[in-house]
Amino acid sequence: MTYKVKDISLAEKGRLLIEWAERHMPVLMKIRERFTREKPLDGIRISASLHVTKETAVLVRTLVAGGATVTLVPSNPLSTQDEVAAALAEDGIYVYAWKGMNEREYYNAIGFAISQEPVVTMDDGADLTVTLHKLALGVKSNEVNYALETAGDRDFAKLISSVYGGTEETTTGVIRLRAMAREGTLRYPIIAVNDSYTKYLFDNRYGTGQSTWDGILRATNILVAGKVVVVAGYGWVGRGIAMRAKGLGARRVIVTEVNPVRALEAVFDGFEVMPMSEAAEIGDIFITATGDINAITLDHILKMKDGAVLANAGHFNVEIDVAGLERVAAEKRKIRDYVVEYRLPNGKRVYLLAEGRLVNLVAAEGHPSEVMDMSFSNQALAVEYIVKNRGKLQLGVHKLPDELDMEVARLKLETMGIRIDQLTEEQRRYISSWGLGT
Amino acid sequence: MTYKVKDISLAEKGRLLIEWAERHMPVLMKIRERFTREKPLDGIRISASLHVTKETAVLVRTLVAGGATVTLVPSNPLSTQDEVAAALAEDGIYVYAWKGMNEREYYNAIGFAISQEPVVTMDDGADLTVTLHKLALGVKSNEVNYALETAGDRDFAKLISSVYGGTEETTTGVIRLRAMAREGTLRYPIIAVNDSYTKYLFDNRYGTGQSTWDGILRATNILVAGKVVVVAGYGWVGRGIAMRAKGLGARRVIVTEVNPVRALEAVFDGFEVMPMSEAAEIGDIFITATGDINAITLDHILKMKDGAVLANAGHFNVEIDVAGLERVAAEKRKIRDYVVEYRLPNGKRVYLLAEGRLVNLVAAEGHPSEVMDMSFSNQALAVEYIVKNRGKLQLGVHKLPDELDMEVARLKLETMGIRIDQLTEEQRRYISSWGLGT
Amino acid sequence: MTYKVKDISLAEKGRLLIEWAERHMPVLMKIRERFTREKPLDGIRISASLHVTKETAVLVRTLVAGGATVTLVPSNPLSTQDEVAAALAEDGIYVYAWKGMNEREYYNAIGFAISQEPVVTMDDGADLTVTLHKLALGVKSNEVNYALETAGDRDFAKLISSVYGGTEETTTGVIRLRAMAREGTLRYPIIAVNDSYTKYLFDNRYGTGQSTWDGILRATNILVAGKVVVVAGYGWVGRGIAMRAKGLGARRVIVTEVNPVRALEAVFDGFEVMPMSEAAEIGDIFITATGDINAITLDHILKMKDGAVLANAGHFNVEIDVAGLERVAAEKRKIRDYVVEYRLPNGKRVYLLAEGRLVNLVAAEGHPSEVMDMSFSNQALAVEYIVKNRGKLQLGVHKLPDELDMEVARLKLETMGIRIDQLTEEQRRYISSWGLGT
Amino acid sequence: MTYKVKDISLAEKGRLLIEWAERHMPVLMKIRERFTREKPLDGIRISASLHVTKETAVLVRTLVAGGATVTLVPSNPLSTQDEVAAALAEDGIYVYAWKGMNEREYYNAIGFAISQEPVVTMDDGADLTVTLHKLALGVKSNEVNYALETAGDRDFAKLISSVYGGTEETTTGVIRLRAMAREGTLRYPIIAVNDSYTKYLFDNRYGTGQSTWDGILRATNILVAGKVVVVAGYGWVGRGIAMRAKGLGARRVIVTEVNPVRALEAVFDGFEVMPMSEAAEIGDIFITATGDINAITLDHILKMKDGAVLANAGHFNVEIDVAGLERVAAEKRKIRDYVVEYRLPNGKRVYLLAEGRLVNLVAAEGHPSEVMDMSFSNQALAVEYIVKNRGKLQLGVHKLPDELDMEVARLKLETMGIRIDQLTEEQRRYISSWGLGT
Repeated sequence: MTYKVKDISLAEKGRLLIEWAERHMPVLMKIRERFTREKPLDGIRISASLHVTKETAVLVRTLVAGGATVTLVPSNPLSTQDEVAAALAEDGIYVYAWKGMNEREYYNAIGFAISQEPVVTMDDGADLTVTLHKLALGVKSNEVNYALETAGDRDFAKLISSVYGGTEETTTGVIRLRAMAREGTLRYPIIAVNDSYTKYLFDNRYGTGQSTWDGILRATNILVAGKVVVVAGYGWVGRGIAMRAKGLGARRVIVTEVNPVRALEAVFDGFEVMPMSEAAEIGDIFITATGDINAITLDHILKMKDGAVLANAGHFNVEIDVAGLERVAAEKRKIRDYVVEYRLPNGKRVYLLAEGRLVNLVAAEGHPSEVMDMSFSNQALAVEYIVKNRGKLQLGVHKLPDELDMEVARLKLETMGIRIDQLTEEQRRYISSWGLGT
Repeated sequence: MTYKVKDISLAEKGRLLIEWAERHMPVLMKIRERFTREKPLDGIRISASLHVTKETAVLVRTLVAGGATVTLVPSNPLSTQDEVAAALAEDGIYVYAWKGMNEREYYNAIGFAISQEPVVTMDDGADLTVTLHKLALGVKSNEVNYALETAGDRDFAKLISSVYGGTEETTTGVIRLRAMAREGTLRYPIIAVNDSYTKYLFDNRYGTGQSTWDGILRATNILVAGKVVVVAGYGWVGRGIAMRAKGLGARRVIVTEVNPVRALEAVFDGFEVMPMSEAAEIGDIFITATGDINAITLDHILKMKDGAVLANAGHFNVEIDVAGLERVAAEKRKIRDYVVEYRLPNGKRVYLLAEGRLVNLVAAEGHPSEVMDMSFSNQALAVEYIVKNRGKLQLGVHKLPDELDMEVARLKLETMGIRIDQLTEEQRRYISSWGLGT
Repeated sequence: MTYKVKDISLAEKGRLLIEWAERHMPVLMKIRERFTREKPLDGIRISASLHVTKETAVLVRTLVAGGATVTLVPSNPLSTQDEVAAALAEDGIYVYAWKGMNEREYYNAIGFAISQEPVVTMDDGADLTVTLHKLALGVKSNEVNYALETAGDRDFAKLISSVYGGTEETTTGVIRLRAMAREGTLRYPIIAVNDSYTKYLFDNRYGTGQSTWDGILRATNILVAGKVVVVAGYGWVGRGIAMRAKGLGARRVIVTEVNPVRALEAVFDGFEVMPMSEAAEIGDIFITATGDINAITLDHILKMKDGAVLANAGHFNVEIDVAGLERVAAEKRKIRDYVVEYRLPNGKRVYLLAEGRLVNLVAAEGHPSEVMDMSFSNQALAVEYIVKNRGKLQLGVHKLPDELDMEVARLKLETMGIRIDQLTEEQRRYISSWGLGT
Repeated sequence: MTYKVKDISLAEKGRLLIEWAERHMPVLMKIRERFTREKPLDGIRISASLHVTKETAVLVRTLVAGGATVTLVPSNPLSTQDEVAAALAEDGIYVYAWKGMNEREYYNAIGFAISQEPVVTMDDGADLTVTLHKLALGVKSNEVNYALETAGDRDFAKLISSVYGGTEETTTGVIRLRAMAREGTLRYPIIAVNDSYTKYLFDNRYGTGQSTWDGILRATNILVAGKVVVVAGYGWVGRGIAMRAKGLGARRVIVTEVNPVRALEAVFDGFEVMPMSEAAEIGDIFITATGDINAITLDHILKMKDGAVLANAGHFNVEIDVAGLERVAAEKRKIRDYVVEYRLPNGKRVYLLAEGRLVNLVAAEGHPSEVMDMSFSNQALAVEYIVKNRGKLQLGVHKLPDELDMEVARLKLETMGIRIDQLTEEQRRYISSWGLGT
């Protein structure tokens, strides 16, 4: 089996989508040009667990242009664009992905990615890396069992020892991998692509900021102007969402936080801050972006106004207590694609979007290509960096070197036709001297 | 001599200003309450080179409440509020400060601060620390000679060896002190108050953002709406200024940068980015905030439109090439307080505000008290920290410990009547685990 | 025949959509309650040419609740939501509408609406009223011939003389009807619903502002942050679009105008203004909202950058010279739904959205329900007003009386849970006196 | 007596200020050029009651250039810039104005303006016109008696009958004059300059928006970011202030209104709306802009938080119940220029700025020149229009003809270097036709 997708006949449509993305990812296309000439990934087997979108396809094609053999599986059960999966499959990528997988199918996909015996892993949320480690360490769980169904009978300890390294795309994944590193569990070095400036300052903020609202509007078609919007979490993602809420005319934008410095920043950025238990009573639209569990609990939901809308923009579907909601709901029905109405015991109704999963990827198309251009350029450079430095990187979670990060920024500006200043020699000297004062 | 101020009869007016500031600095007032009880600075001699403003007076009174003896001199020749200086002098602080010092008087003040043989120094721009080091190291310069006139004949090497440590308020000073540390010149440990989250994220951004425009409006009374504003530098100060330019209705806000990541952030924040040589031709108002020399050169000035306004928000008056402007100007006259008109050889006129010095401190009153509340709470805690840990801190430039920084944020929220969420035990566990995935 | 729709089996899905809209249209639902009790439209035959959306369905159901018999046809060939059409048809409304009509089918629908011999007409763009007048006046044209195919052989002069009046929803339609009134052509009175404050200040600005961007994002998935956006026209629609462009992070928002006062307002609102011939060279995304023909000409298109995106938010598809584009294009292909790529003779590519038709209705779902709540409450009250005052209204184009307009605003605030102040007797007296001065 | 000012020796400083304003008022300067050539006001006696600011001086000089003899008195007891009054006096203008007049002095000034037997009056708030009418009608009051002290013994009925007409600058004045016209009291025609698009859309919104905050910041130096701001009234002035409050980073901007349509606009513009009685409890800064009496009552003040700041941006000092505040205050003291602290019986303190008078004119310098450029160009054209059409204008309050208004806009764009589009012949035809539909 070389692929498993929903419908291979969607390939032509997928190819047009990928081409559209390529037009908006000029930095990655420049890297592809170089990879095509230099073949830095020649013979490298890569397994990637990433959202299967048109932008990921541009990345995969770039890795292939560099000489790699790529296996692609999803990083979320609902985020696959089936046309894109079909197009990649037809081009010979080992794709195992379709929109709407159940938990078993999802981990079958992860297992399939492992079965290809990668020397580099790529992750968005760390499911592939974590599962591979669990297999190697003999940890038991349902997920592991599902993965084993497709991974086959292998010496996973040996397999993991031959991995050069992995990349991780998102905050949540980096947090998991850092926890593994702290514990001493981690078996190969990781490049935290998320920690590149040209990733987290842009993708997390401007990408999620726009695409979360895009997902909410596609799902609900509600008017943001005049609404009370509650954003849980004021990290880069949360501040992008809050900023756009204001830009779309929300009457009140309320932020909830646990970190006092971030809370203060929200206040001085012109937002209201209060505990979720208070915000629950006045919000019209709730969006979680904390990276943590139960940012919205059942107690919060029971306090909400009739008609409240709930969406999640964090990586995992744990931020809203969907299980609690399911448990107490008097009635549940689907209103529109990605909108489910729950009638609560108190008679009020709330509307959960996209099952509490990443609303931007499920109800819309994830981040726009322009911002993934930078994130995935970092990914491509990170893979090249791992391959070049194989055997030399220390165990642990690393940032991509600053000069590569800066290079991505420089290329992005250039492809946008924007020129900037250069430090003069005099300025360089001044900034590093201490003798000159008032 | 215990003080040298412009006019001691201004004291009553100064006291009212200080009281007004105290009302808006509740965090520092809470620290003062504790200092009054605990006297952590008992017998400590502090010399401070800070902008002599009503907010600084609230800090000085807090240090005194903690048991310290304080000497206060300016950190800028033009930024002293004479009423405040008078009020402090009358209260027994060793003040040597008036608005409009020349270079010699300014360094006389620095020398006076040194003559008090401090065990803790406080700086805003590092002039005091640098001068003390130059004296101790035997470096010769005009500034040093001026300082010697008041510092008296002493064993500066011995003096410097008895200093427990110093604090530094601003980015520019931190850069200078880091350069000294790198070179091995630094003789006592420094707490870079500027690097506290509750300082640079707030004071540099929201404080300078507002107060720079306050200074420009007081000086010129021009309308921002409809104007083309050019901001040199997109650090925390620059982004505060750019954000407020947009908030005041500027038609175009153009940012110039040398750092490609910052330049990209400006672009995605909704600003235009271009080299200063291009921006020079289209701007109506130019504001520098780079921390570097000659962000606006004479060449740039000669390209500007008739009527262009130039202001500086960076620490030192080196960002605009004022010397070059003076050299070529066909005519020069004062139009309003803090507005000087230069007629260029090409017949066009440009308007330099506040002699190219910090426009917010010279033409307005510096940062609002609310934001200095946090910065100066960090200062007070930094002094206490130095005293508590004397002899234990390594040579070098340090951040204040995170828990003190967080404590300032927590107190600020509390005094604003804002409550935030706390992590539950479940959430704390989740965020530090790695096993739970999709 | 009582209806002609795409697929009657979509009715159930349509009903859920209508119910969703009803939840967000509380003012219209209050009017429906009253209509149900009072039956003010008993026996009234209404023919409506409106966008066949879920919100229009809520209006139609309200008219029916008031006792009317309603015929519904589209006001745009591409804007029909087929599920909604099916649901209304199943409920007994005479619906003749599907998405993607050609010109002949569209005017067949108009003819069908006329064949029902309405005593009240409702229009969005005035196609129904104009066609009925052309028939009555014996004007010949293709459109008239198509309409005749379904309107049947009738005495249209007699028919038109028995019409009590009509309503018109949009600026473009009002302009056409005012031109007819000026010429003396108009045969029955019109209520320009568009001219109600609670219509044009909200629907045109906040509704189109959001929904135009919603349509563009669904069609293209591009990132707005960092882009150069050009908006043609700074009427209420244009300013909504420009405001949201800025809110979504556009780097430059350029407005083109022919009216100097509006142009100045754009400048002081913080936008750039220039002629389209200049803007054409620098824009990434172009959106027309002028209500006029050829706001973007072929000449403009030929100047554009490779990759430029073109969309229209004005009522008719005449604002972009699509015919010219079709004529010169070297190649044309569909990239995504509602995105067509044209390769120009100069080798560059431009992307036309939604065939140059209303992008918010074609690529998204039109205005959100919350804003149509007010517009369609005005419609319902306008129909009632026409019926109540039949025979008494003068020929011409009228505004709905201010007290009805204010009542809509009052109900809207009430349903949002927002309370406002009332003038005290003292204040009422003060505001109408002239004797009290300084 | 030809003038009465504070200190004639301030004239040189005043001249520089006027020159600075002239640089920023290019449209009025173009009109002055034409007036200088054409002398359209030759021999015309004008009495003007206007804020005596540098911008008014530019207008007065323009009228004089046109041939007029001008008398200038204040329109507010606190708004005179003494340097400007001195400069004008030295140039031969009949100035009777200084900062800080009491009520008697203020009406003495009005009487002086009447004593010059003007044929054209110019007003900002209508005090001059109203007083002249009261004199002519024999109405008795303190103000009238004060005016008589300087107006001398005259036949005021005859005087008023020889007035060609008057101009009125502001909303409040227009409301008073419309009330007089309604009652049949008005004796000569008025041009409501305020009703020109190029006046009220700009000066009231962008001018007051910025200058009100400028006044508040100069008076208090408080930080806007993080504050809760309450704006009473959402007319053009109120929306300017609310917009800038958000632009300066206020955490919550609350609007109070009595008009439901305006209240809804505020909501959809992204502001909170509630009754003042609720807002009173949560606001940090209160600004009135209603044009009505007691927008903030003593009851409201007693509910406010300790430290609340109160300012007025409406024409008259009646919007805040200052009398009530004075009556109940336990203690009152001046904290800074234009900041008075009142200790309430409940122990809390509130801070009243500028005695409740126009904070932008009292604590800052009024509107920036750029925006007065348009307002005063309308004034100059209105005077010319009155003179040209003397004897032909109907009694009543008129708008300046649209073509003059448009001309001001066109000149403003031109002087800003901004070009706009022109309607093509085809576009002009299309927009006035009705036959072309879908």
